[in-house]
Amino acid sequence: MVQHAEHEVFKKLRHATQAAGYDALVAFSPDNVSYTAGVLLPSHALNRFRRTISVLAGDSFAAQVVVTVEEKLARERSRFRDIRPYGQFDQNAVDVLADILEEAGVADGKIAIELDYMPAEDYIRLSARLPRARFFECKSIYFKTRMIKTDAEVATLRRVGALTDQVIGSVLATIKPGVTEAEIGRQIADRMYAGGCGDLKYQVGSGINSGITNCGTSDKKVEKGDVIRVEVLGSLDNYRSNVTRTAVMGQATAEQKAIWKTLIGARDICKSMLRPGTRVPDLYSAYVKACHSGGIEPTLQFLGHGIGQTIHEEPYITTTRDIVLEPNITFTMEPLYMIPGRMGFHVEDMYVITKGGFEPLSGDATPNDQLIAIG
Amino acid sequence: MVQHAEHEVFKKLRHATQAAGYDALVAFSPDNVSYTAGVLLPSHALNRFRRTISVLAGDSFAAQVVVTVEEKLARERSRFRDIRPYGQFDQNAVDVLADILEEAGVADGKIAIELDYMPAEDYIRLSARLPRARFFECKSIYFKTRMIKTDAEVATLRRVGALTDQVIGSVLATIKPGVTEAEIGRQIADRMYAGGCGDLKYQVGSGINSGITNCGTSDKKVEKGDVIRVEVLGSLDNYRSNVTRTAVMGQATAEQKAIWKTLIGARDICKSMLRPGTRVPDLYSAYVKACHSGGIEPTLQFLGHGIGQTIHEEPYITTTRDIVLEPNITFTMEPLYMIPGRMGFHVEDMYVITKGGFEPLSGDATPNDQLIAIG
Repeated sequence: MVQHAEHEVFKKLRHATQAAGYDALVAFSPDNVSYTAGVLLPSHALNRFRRTISVLAGDSFAAQVVVTVEEKLARERSRFRDIRPYGQFDQNAVDVLADILEEAGVADGKIAIELDYMPAEDYIRLSARLPRARFFECKSIYFKTRMIKTDAEVATLRRVGALTDQVIGSVLATIKPGVTEAEIGRQIADRMYAGGCGDLKYQVGSGINSGITNCGTSDKKVEKGDVIRVEVLGSLDNYRSNVTRTAVMGQATAEQKAIWKTLIGARDICKSMLRPGTRVPDLYSAYVKACHSGGIEPTLQFLGHGIGQTIHEEPYITTTRDIVLEPNITFTMEPLYMIPGRMGFHVEDMYVITKGGFEPLSGDATPNDQLIAIG
Repeated sequence: MVQHAEHEVFKKLRHATQAAGYDALVAFSPDNVSYTAGVLLPSHALNRFRRTISVLAGDSFAAQVVVTVEEKLARERSRFRDIRPYGQFDQNAVDVLADILEEAGVADGKIAIELDYMPAEDYIRLSARLPRARFFECKSIYFKTRMIKTDAEVATLRRVGALTDQVIGSVLATIKPGVTEAEIGRQIADRMYAGGCGDLKYQVGSGINSGITNCGTSDKKVEKGDVIRVEVLGSLDNYRSNVTRTAVMGQATAEQKAIWKTLIGARDICKSMLRPGTRVPDLYSAYVKACHSGGIEPTLQFLGHGIGQTIHEEPYITTTRDIVLEPNITFTMEPLYMIPGRMGFHVEDMYVITKGGFEPLSGDATPNDQLIAIG
């Protein structure tokens, strides 16, 4: 039998699992299973009653549990060669998982499993089926492994960041007073899909709506003097973008310019710190300090967040994260300041740490160093 | 203090909880919390690390746990007046939940909770915090309550069904040989968003791709003779549509026509059974029997599924569901037959049971009684 070299991601996960002292690694969530398997099975995102579970054990055991309706797709596209289908209506995926863990010889071992996602009923059932197994959180194994992207992952994030940046800029360039937030959203969607985007979310807030953090997109018309905040969450090949721009219809006021100068100044101080070795809490503290010296209290309790197969992952840029930047960490920085009932300001771009410093993954097409003037 | 009448949904859920003998009802999932609260908070769909939890207890206690970043939105839009924010980075939502359950006087009571969604770690922590509480599955309380829609819910499903039906038909009417699956998808997205659609998924499979159940949408060009299967999952105000059409580019072959006649014949037999009192297993059996008499083995082990705030909910139309149809149950029927490696056939529409029988929620704009001829 020909031995195939294992995929880089399998190797990294096995290494992290063994280094933490565990015998097996079991994932349930769409993001961790998709990261492991290299494919997001449609049911996993659409139907919470259909389980998709990945198992790595020891040096070579690897199997994936999928619902029968996804068996064919999994056999074609998953990195796992050992696909174990189960019937949604007449079988329980946890029983299949228990059989797999017994077969892998870890039924009395230490199993790192997604306690932060695995449903309680599955935990209760699996504990009853494998009474000698000990279960441990695997959150940090996945967080840390996924935080350092492979070069292939960075390349995908670069593509989706550039697409999203370019689309927001090209749409903002066309809008005139009287256009509705929904029409702006529709144009964004059309151009994102034309660029190959899969999953897409966006929000367009104008006037007082710009001052609501997650405002959605309404039928309000954009009027002269409105601040317009456009946030787009796109995806290519299941990797995510998160880019936000703030514009003003017409002339920005002195107040608006002053707020923006403070936010961009704070961001630029943070950009100057982006290199291997910088501590994440220091980055956040520098941001808060720069905001305060401009007379602004940041609205969010974080400066940004890791980005990859999920929109929010590690590292969250906050004082609560004791993480040191290193090459191939990807994340956003999103200075944000809301004046509820009046208006809101927000600029968000994506970055990757490199050996020598950093590379922006968005921002070339539509720099937002000034408030974008439209109309 | 003025007493406000409770929302119909609160009343229904309290009644079902008490009838089942429980002291409280706790939901964690985006669909059950949104059903209860009347609003989907954006974080709940986007970020699995942010909990949103609804609590109903006794005759009048009602509270919702949200992450601080969503507090303002929840206060504006949720049916819950008692909003309990928690900090994502310095608090655990389960501690807030435990405090609420103590305050509601049910810390030593019987608590119906979403064991099929609640993460295992939250279950472990809550069990430790409330050692005298007993926890029970609440799946069937929500399934049964949500299965019988309110008239307002039916009205929203009618709107999203009609929009989706109309959009698929209007796009299919325009396509010519050489168009790619992705371009068809892009047109669908544009028209769905123009109609106010929120969350959207679709798949366009042509030729052999039509024979893959969840095929996605590729850059393949649609060629003469291709079967084309278009499935659209749209939403309006967080209620979902699921409509599928099958077309042929050019002339259908005798084999294709015969398969389609069998599928549509099976569907029409099922339609003739849609009224209060029909047993769901009988509906499924009639479908299978009609397929068999046409020489076809149905590819899926269900005929359709409930539809509402989620794409798949109860009733699943299978022999495993001991459910009797009654007014305001909404569901799809989706006869489907795949010949892997060659082509696939699939028609899906939405229905609501009425006192006198049923009403189709899609299908008027784009009947698919014949394979749709395009090109």
